[in-house]
Amino acid sequence: MANPSAAMLVIGDEILSGRTRDANMHYLAGQLTEAGIDLREVRVVSDDPAAIVSAVRALSDAHETVFTSGGIGPTHDDITADCMAEAFGDKIDVRPDARALLQAHYDKQGVELNAARLRMARIPDSAALIDNPVSVAPGFTIKNVHVMAGVPAVFQAMVATVLPTLTGGDPLISKTLRIERGEGDIAGPLGMLAKAYPDLSLGSYPYQKDGKYGANIVIRGTDGVRVDTAIAELAQAFPV
Amino acid sequence: MANPSAAMLVIGDEILSGRTRDANMHYLAGQLTEAGIDLREVRVVSDDPAAIVSAVRALSDAHETVFTSGGIGPTHDDITADCMAEAFGDKIDVRPDARALLQAHYDKQGVELNAARLRMARIPDSAALIDNPVSVAPGFTIKNVHVMAGVPAVFQAMVATVLPTLTGGDPLISKTLRIERGEGDIAGPLGMLAKAYPDLSLGSYPYQKDGKYGANIVIRGTDGVRVDTAIAELAQAFPV
Repeated sequence: MANPSAAMLVIGDEILSGRTRDANMHYLAGQLTEAGIDLREVRVVSDDPAAIVSAVRALSDAHETVFTSGGIGPTHDDITADCMAEAFGDKIDVRPDARALLQAHYDKQGVELNAARLRMARIPDSAALIDNPVSVAPGFTIKNVHVMAGVPAVFQAMVATVLPTLTGGDPLISKTLRIERGEGDIAGPLGMLAKAYPDLSLGSYPYQKDGKYGANIVIRGTDGVRVDTAIAELAQAFPV
Repeated sequence: MANPSAAMLVIGDEILSGRTRDANMHYLAGQLTEAGIDLREVRVVSDDPAAIVSAVRALSDAHETVFTSGGIGPTHDDITADCMAEAFGDKIDVRPDARALLQAHYDKQGVELNAARLRMARIPDSAALIDNPVSVAPGFTIKNVHVMAGVPAVFQAMVATVLPTLTGGDPLISKTLRIERGEGDIAGPLGMLAKAYPDLSLGSYPYQKDGKYGANIVIRGTDGVRVDTAIAELAQAFPV
């Protein structure tokens, strides 16, 4: 059985301008692979309502689960929640449950829950809140889309909350063989191996070190015995 | 006048599985911003022909220039060139000009130009080659799409070749003001400033350091005087 498919939508001008290097995609990719969920596609869009709405609709239609990061803070460029409501035809306003969370948090700190901070309680009517143990302002799940913060510490905490609720497939087993030969020498035997093991995924990642060419060959699949057998065949074809 | 718009397509299972952390997106984003070209969208897809073909068609239609990275090596999972030919209805085979480059390179090294290495000379008929000063196997430009290697050193060398041929807009001026206040305090005045300067882009990037909250406010625009004026107004609103 094929593993469930997932997609990610990264929202933010700061990534596309090169100001910030995104860290959440790489983190989520690793977590999903461990959970047996296939990350099939990632899109990065700017803080532009039309781009966000059209991307999240496309990804929500094409994949079982979608994760978004970014754009749920208190400033004018935090427009993700409103875009999600628009994308899925839902109403949005300050929600009492989210407001209560923020009120308790800021009361304890002696900080005013002003209009800007209250923006973080704007949650679509049909959404379920995602707990934020780091800085309280919640994420939310609407339809099959989990809407999370862009700040990596908060993003990671929200992923930890959401992941156990998803039904993953079999975790992917991955084995690597380092071959100290040019990729052009490896490609022939590797291609034959790929045909003999259509259920496995074979990747070749070339490197150059101290002037020598080589490649890390990664074989992935859900059946550990098959992965081991394929790695052994490959090792035999390239004796050290 | 609006700056030219660009998109990027990152091709590779290794990014989506979390095995490799992509470096090319961040590099290209910085280079394009300097050149006055707006990177509007990035997509990451797996080594799946249907996904690659449909993504590159969509991006090529929606943007003036598209850059791709990954999938142009000698192994069976390097399918980018064939997908580009399919996407744009072009023929593809080993091309004499690309073959000659590889032949000369491998002859000099005393290495055989075998079937696998010859795959790297498969270039669509209508494409123009992109020079690869690092490892010879060329990239290519088809329609408005620049097809480049995934290995960062080669990707960067190809970007250096392609960028001067593109007509950029005005380079983006960017100024940052660090404000040691919670984003919730900054958001109100910042939102008013954004309304007063609709030609500028105002971003807020929160941080937490030594238990204190703050935000870097980045104001971007093509008119340096306007950017400076807006930064000065903001600084006045938040005296240290």
